[in-house]
Amino acid sequence: MPNLKIFSDLSHPELAKEICAELQMPFGRANIQIFSNGNPIVEIQECVRGCDVFVIGTQAPPASENFISFCILINALRYASARRITAVIPYLFESRSDKKDRPRIAIVSRLVAQMLETSGINRAIFIDLHAPQIQGFFRLPTDTINGAGLICKFLKQRDLNNYVIVAPDAGEAKKLHPFQELMPQLPLAMLDKRRYAHDEKPIVHKLIGEVGGKIALIIDDEISSGGTIKEAADFFQRLPINEQPSEIRVATTHPILSGSAMTTLNQSGIKELIAINTVPVPETKKQVAQFEFHLLSPAGIIAKTIEIIHTDSSVGEFLDKEYLK
Amino acid sequence: MPNLKIFSDLSHPELAKEICAELQMPFGRANIQIFSNGNPIVEIQECVRGCDVFVIGTQAPPASENFISFCILINALRYASARRITAVIPYLFESRSDKKDRPRIAIVSRLVAQMLETSGINRAIFIDLHAPQIQGFFRLPTDTINGAGLICKFLKQRDLNNYVIVAPDAGEAKKLHPFQELMPQLPLAMLDKRRYAHDEKPIVHKLIGEVGGKIALIIDDEISSGGTIKEAADFFQRLPINEQPSEIRVATTHPILSGSAMTTLNQSGIKELIAINTVPVPETKKQVAQFEFHLLSPAGIIAKTIEIIHTDSSVGEFLDKEYLK
Amino acid sequence: MPNLKIFSDLSHPELAKEICAELQMPFGRANIQIFSNGNPIVEIQECVRGCDVFVIGTQAPPASENFISFCILINALRYASARRITAVIPYLFESRSDKKDRPRIAIVSRLVAQMLETSGINRAIFIDLHAPQIQGFFRLPTDTINGAGLICKFLKQRDLNNYVIVAPDAGEAKKLHPFQELMPQLPLAMLDKRRYAHDEKPIVHKLIGEVGGKIALIIDDEISSGGTIKEAADFFQRLPINEQPSEIRVATTHPILSGSAMTTLNQSGIKELIAINTVPVPETKKQVAQFEFHLLSPAGIIAKTIEIIHTDSSVGEFLDKEYLK
Amino acid sequence: MPNLKIFSDLSHPELAKEICAELQMPFGRANIQIFSNGNPIVEIQECVRGCDVFVIGTQAPPASENFISFCILINALRYASARRITAVIPYLFESRSDKKDRPRIAIVSRLVAQMLETSGINRAIFIDLHAPQIQGFFRLPTDTINGAGLICKFLKQRDLNNYVIVAPDAGEAKKLHPFQELMPQLPLAMLDKRRYAHDEKPIVHKLIGEVGGKIALIIDDEISSGGTIKEAADFFQRLPINEQPSEIRVATTHPILSGSAMTTLNQSGIKELIAINTVPVPETKKQVAQFEFHLLSPAGIIAKTIEIIHTDSSVGEFLDKEYLK
Amino acid sequence: MPNLKIFSDLSHPELAKEICAELQMPFGRANIQIFSNGNPIVEIQECVRGCDVFVIGTQAPPASENFISFCILINALRYASARRITAVIPYLFESRSDKKDRPRIAIVSRLVAQMLETSGINRAIFIDLHAPQIQGFFRLPTDTINGAGLICKFLKQRDLNNYVIVAPDAGEAKKLHPFQELMPQLPLAMLDKRRYAHDEKPIVHKLIGEVGGKIALIIDDEISSGGTIKEAADFFQRLPINEQPSEIRVATTHPILSGSAMTTLNQSGIKELIAINTVPVPETKKQVAQFEFHLLSPAGIIAKTIEIIHTDSSVGEFLDKEYLK
Amino acid sequence: MPNLKIFSDLSHPELAKEICAELQMPFGRANIQIFSNGNPIVEIQECVRGCDVFVIGTQAPPASENFISFCILINALRYASARRITAVIPYLFESRSDKKDRPRIAIVSRLVAQMLETSGINRAIFIDLHAPQIQGFFRLPTDTINGAGLICKFLKQRDLNNYVIVAPDAGEAKKLHPFQELMPQLPLAMLDKRRYAHDEKPIVHKLIGEVGGKIALIIDDEISSGGTIKEAADFFQRLPINEQPSEIRVATTHPILSGSAMTTLNQSGIKELIAINTVPVPETKKQVAQFEFHLLSPAGIIAKTIEIIHTDSSVGEFLDKEYLK
Repeated sequence: MPNLKIFSDLSHPELAKEICAELQMPFGRANIQIFSNGNPIVEIQECVRGCDVFVIGTQAPPASENFISFCILINALRYASARRITAVIPYLFESRSDKKDRPRIAIVSRLVAQMLETSGINRAIFIDLHAPQIQGFFRLPTDTINGAGLICKFLKQRDLNNYVIVAPDAGEAKKLHPFQELMPQLPLAMLDKRRYAHDEKPIVHKLIGEVGGKIALIIDDEISSGGTIKEAADFFQRLPINEQPSEIRVATTHPILSGSAMTTLNQSGIKELIAINTVPVPETKKQVAQFEFHLLSPAGIIAKTIEIIHTDSSVGEFLDKEYLK
Repeated sequence: MPNLKIFSDLSHPELAKEICAELQMPFGRANIQIFSNGNPIVEIQECVRGCDVFVIGTQAPPASENFISFCILINALRYASARRITAVIPYLFESRSDKKDRPRIAIVSRLVAQMLETSGINRAIFIDLHAPQIQGFFRLPTDTINGAGLICKFLKQRDLNNYVIVAPDAGEAKKLHPFQELMPQLPLAMLDKRRYAHDEKPIVHKLIGEVGGKIALIIDDEISSGGTIKEAADFFQRLPINEQPSEIRVATTHPILSGSAMTTLNQSGIKELIAINTVPVPETKKQVAQFEFHLLSPAGIIAKTIEIIHTDSSVGEFLDKEYLK
Repeated sequence: MPNLKIFSDLSHPELAKEICAELQMPFGRANIQIFSNGNPIVEIQECVRGCDVFVIGTQAPPASENFISFCILINALRYASARRITAVIPYLFESRSDKKDRPRIAIVSRLVAQMLETSGINRAIFIDLHAPQIQGFFRLPTDTINGAGLICKFLKQRDLNNYVIVAPDAGEAKKLHPFQELMPQLPLAMLDKRRYAHDEKPIVHKLIGEVGGKIALIIDDEISSGGTIKEAADFFQRLPINEQPSEIRVATTHPILSGSAMTTLNQSGIKELIAINTVPVPETKKQVAQFEFHLLSPAGIIAKTIEIIHTDSSVGEFLDKEYLK
Repeated sequence: MPNLKIFSDLSHPELAKEICAELQMPFGRANIQIFSNGNPIVEIQECVRGCDVFVIGTQAPPASENFISFCILINALRYASARRITAVIPYLFESRSDKKDRPRIAIVSRLVAQMLETSGINRAIFIDLHAPQIQGFFRLPTDTINGAGLICKFLKQRDLNNYVIVAPDAGEAKKLHPFQELMPQLPLAMLDKRRYAHDEKPIVHKLIGEVGGKIALIIDDEISSGGTIKEAADFFQRLPINEQPSEIRVATTHPILSGSAMTTLNQSGIKELIAINTVPVPETKKQVAQFEFHLLSPAGIIAKTIEIIHTDSSVGEFLDKEYLK
Repeated sequence: MPNLKIFSDLSHPELAKEICAELQMPFGRANIQIFSNGNPIVEIQECVRGCDVFVIGTQAPPASENFISFCILINALRYASARRITAVIPYLFESRSDKKDRPRIAIVSRLVAQMLETSGINRAIFIDLHAPQIQGFFRLPTDTINGAGLICKFLKQRDLNNYVIVAPDAGEAKKLHPFQELMPQLPLAMLDKRRYAHDEKPIVHKLIGEVGGKIALIIDDEISSGGTIKEAADFFQRLPINEQPSEIRVATTHPILSGSAMTTLNQSGIKELIAINTVPVPETKKQVAQFEFHLLSPAGIIAKTIEIIHTDSSVGEFLDKEYLK
Repeated sequence: MPNLKIFSDLSHPELAKEICAELQMPFGRANIQIFSNGNPIVEIQECVRGCDVFVIGTQAPPASENFISFCILINALRYASARRITAVIPYLFESRSDKKDRPRIAIVSRLVAQMLETSGINRAIFIDLHAPQIQGFFRLPTDTINGAGLICKFLKQRDLNNYVIVAPDAGEAKKLHPFQELMPQLPLAMLDKRRYAHDEKPIVHKLIGEVGGKIALIIDDEISSGGTIKEAADFFQRLPINEQPSEIRVATTHPILSGSAMTTLNQSGIKELIAINTVPVPETKKQVAQFEFHLLSPAGIIAKTIEIIHTDSSVGEFLDKEYLK
């Protein structure tokens, strides 16, 4: 594949290497540093003039620094005359800030989209945006890889007969759609969260549907502090014994696992966490897990998507057939 | 309020008049016609130079013609040197096309947002967008009035003890949030739709939660053909008798009621339809209804929002307190 | 011609088919529908990634719906990653609204140009814009095919000795230039229209030049209601008998023929109407004509222009030599 | 009128002074120079922060230098934080390059429009653009003062009974419209120009209409070299004596009168030249005229238009009523 | 001053408070937090609709996070309908990356300028940009406060007879211009840095001018690691004793003082460091200084500049007269 | 090199021819004229559709006319569908106006950058911008050829032992950097200019460094009126005889030599002027020189840069290695 180049910022070098390995390509050389005044600085170290460049960067903590470094890398490639720049962003910065649901807040993911455009991207690839509408914040072509495809492939290797899919709130219920499509035999349940007074946090109020004696598979697009899972687990424990699930297992796309998330998850008593390697999970975190922790690699599907885009084949059909877009 | 002017296209003159009446203001004079070659043409008939103009237009069928006329009206105001133009759009064109969930479709509401920007608006006011993220498709300030406020005010005049809120599918479940906030005592149920084969339409598969013997209040943001309601009603009829609701009532923001929607609703056996007057419902449609049909006027809240924007007060606080944004 | 694709909206399928036949190419597959809420929706059904796409659409009535559908089709192609999109627009929406000759009107064809840019076109091809300056409303390359070439080719097959070209008003006189260039032997006459009071419509006041005993060939770029032709014919009838033309024949580029235009033309007593197939003329209209009705196909010249653009040859030279640009 | 400021470049200081005198305002102080390397440089010498600034500049020769200086002046005002900048351009640079009528030429007045936008104008005022569509090349509000109003006011002071309006070619015929509206009793004639071979210049071929024994009032929007007038005069002289006009008089908006134009006009034997002072006519040129030379000042109407815009009144109505827009 | 509001991000609260105190204004209420996934999130807590808002943020380490938070704050204000937003940036992010002096690097301060524009600023105020040309990277009005004014005011309180200004390299020499203007009696010297081989770092090679026995006042716009000062001091020590300065004193605008900068400065043996409080200097750093450390507050001049801009007075004249722009 | 085309405006035909000769390519045909009304007009006379076009133009006097003609040429190429347009600008218009160092002036080179973008360039190549930051005023890729490379190559053919490089002021000192890199053995001196009162011009006040008995090689990026050189020469003459240089030689990139510059240089008593042929120097000027006048051709390096860009090789590496970027 002549003229194809892959670059990566410093946010998730392991994933970038896996993708290059899948494509049997060397890594684009770039020097990315932070100056003593805290300013990131980037130097591309090979000619990219006229090339079709894919730039990999994920925006896990330190998210702002990762995001800015990524933008500078893109900008350097743009002014170094790359022909086309595709941002490959497994976890998009500020993806949760996708609507104006309180007065005087910013829709930050729109700003992020505009900043990426300003930096010089021509297109972007994501894995599971917090809302699919975020694609519309960009005014250039984007593709979203659906994490459900990877997770369901993994789950289908086991007997799912006793499983029930649980949405941790109504907002998440909508996102279960691809799971429903891929595993149509599984029943569904949802936790109903309510806010009792205007200034209070919403709390789990009721279970809609049934999980009694079943394996509750809680699905959430991102696990940050682990609070949502803990809350669900606590609620289940307060149910009459026969209405409680026999086990709680969790599947997520983005294992942010910030702060004391591992402790919180351990306290929740979950049996398993299935996640996609969209952000780096340090070995130390994996080791403290008191549950099965499966980290699925998206490198294959990303590599294939890059190849398809580079050769002007159909991304939509590939994602549809193979992994459910 | 000097320098404030209200204009309207031809899409919903009755609502426009109500809003002007609330504001105790005359209507801006404009001549809007369709030429013999099918081209809309607009002439503003009074000076708007330096004015703060609000333009009312809703995009019910004939939706394209209404939308284009609205854009031309805005463009004429822009070049006639209006100082600020706020589009007031009770029902936004192509609001349902808000994500790219199949290959090679357009996110048409992003295009609509860009066309409105191109026409010359400075800001926009909506009532219940199909997804709140659509605000992010605009790169200028917008405000969304939450129809739930109006509907709940109306509902709360009655005894709701036996009511249960029903989401017709998981996508709609998320939008019930404001109803849950405003009527926290009401239980929730959801219809689970599944697609049995890749090329088939999703159909109602199961009820999650319980409605037996209760009044099922189905809430949907828009009723076009009435098919969703009919499907739900049919599903309820197939349930064991004790699991069936005692009555079905429906609340919606946008009563599009296109084609044979009234017949379909009559066949569904619903007892009541509560809707907001965001699009014109012809008298003939109201008369054939074999159910209570309540059309709530948004003129008061729109008029107040206009006044607040014009006088640089806080829209967010007003919508929050009075009507739940 | 690899990577070349032709798509069409629903506005003039017959012409689109003829163009594809000329190019010996299949038609691009796309599904274009109107939803029950009046919203057009488009799905491209084949991969266009990296392709050089030409999209055919003409904006005859229902003009707004045709225009919006065309924009959505373009937008879907843009986000489906077409490399270049050329709009092929035989009859441009709002082409007559090309200047601000009254206070507070919009120059709507500028807005149309901006909306097409916003939708995602890279270039455009037209046939006979109402004014050649409209090209300047676009900020991207455009080409205009001059209908006079086709019409003169057709006319030159007959003896033109007794013909005189008649401009129906001074505005049209300027547009006769290509006819004068192509048929330099034909004399010219012009109807002088005046407005007697500020609020009145201008009416034909005088003939400048001579048509007595000759065949008056009235040339107008567009015939909508037929009113202009009827007015000219009526004026000729009021002239002294020896100053009247022996026959009236009419040539036009765009046969909109809206409403009762066919009746009006029949009443005008014209002997012939020569028009270009830029907008669909239903068979029923052709059948009621009490005059010779010649509909010339622009498919050949459009197909050749597409081929030239696709292969980076010179459009200007082709149009200049073969058909007079 | 607080916050109103008038600036001018060096292109037509006399007109700028007249306008300020009409408005009873001092002149904005600015230093405009050409450096030794040929680069214009501008320094605004008074505070304009928050002001409503009108900048006067006409683009007669040296046209490029005048245009660039004008743009720099505007840019300096923009970055000096003027609140609104209105360009007042009696004669617009490159106004004749308004369409692409030969392959591979630029529509230069579109580029001029874009450069003025880039420089920082918010709106513009012109006198008689070469084509009214040029307004559409700007994507901001513009107003055009119609020179016909001034000229007709002047002409109506005399007995016009024996006058006939003559268009020097079909292109100009269209522009006679306002003269026809203002002096509806005057007959019309037109010179028919043809090109006998593809590479030749078009020459006057025939007179359409009658001027025999009458005063031919040739109207052209701009007189540069005087060639068009000379050609018309020569053609008249070749007519049979009884078909010749008794006198030739000329009215124009823009008296460019470049090179040996005065000699050419003298040789044409015209009796009178009526022009508007949109570009400076040096005293030396006026003195060699062998005909009556009337230079009408547009200062009054420009001053009034500025006042109306500044006070947010209706420009359209003013121009319509008083001077015919 | 009605409608004036001051907001600040979390980067330098002490300075923001001082500025508000100078203006006798309360602080705008905003909640700025970092989510558990590392994403900053902002909520404006008072109405800013129609207000003239100044937002204070400096981009010292953690520079990326400070910059992104600042952009989000601006974006929230923009969509909360502030009328005008002026960014007040004492130390601009990436100001040192101002040219492309090696292949394939980005001019990052241009990207920063574009990102600020994208976020929604209308204008910006800086203190001492690394190069004055950086103002040109913005396409909106900016003002730069010259730190030399503050520093010279402070220096002039002492006897400067024995002082010589020293530029640490040729690049800095150019920036001494304002010091030369304000203290014209002081002689000048410059260190000449050379690079002996292509891959080596440039090192101090020679002193141009004389400092023997005098107080060398080294002036640098920013002190980050302190390396430049140490190098100069070391070079001086290697000079013959009579060519060495009697003392080294240092003046700078931006006391970044990152990492072990204080140690490095202590080792350089400088007698004094004069700096402006453009970035927060923690108390701990001040305490370890083995030299006089004077931190001059820019709050007064910033407050005055804000007031002037808000009231549409002349910033240029104020800065020129009082503090030398 | 298929699809490569070179065009030139009329500003420096000799250089354009040399570049084409180096590339062994014919010249692109274009007709560039000035109309009688002072308006430049351009017609491209060969097909450029899909081509990679380089357009050569330098902006020496008449600078405005040259600049505008250049922009129109670019715009004609853009709308003639060139695939990529690279402006090759040996001497950039308004390059000296690069910062806002007085109130209410424009940064004109930013405006120039924006006008070039507006005209339609995709990239640009310069020789020695007045400040390297000017690249940042463009929002597209640019490359700058460093004139020092050519000059040093030429100088190194002689014995430089007795030479000292002299910066005529502190501003120029910074630009000596490449000369220092290329000729590291040469000592450096600088003239210190001061302004004694606020309204006075800065004058040479002192020499920093030593030139006594040596050959002073004054380096300045541009010589316009010759005033700076004369001032330096006069200052040297006022020095004690043993501190005076033995000879003055001058090297410059841009020999503007406007007005009486040759006389001024002759009066300065310089022995040599080395310049690059970035702007045309008429034969008459060369003949009056009372000093050696060497005009170095940049055609070779420009031709090579064009070839490298056209073939997607690395410009940075080429300029770095061969000529020092």
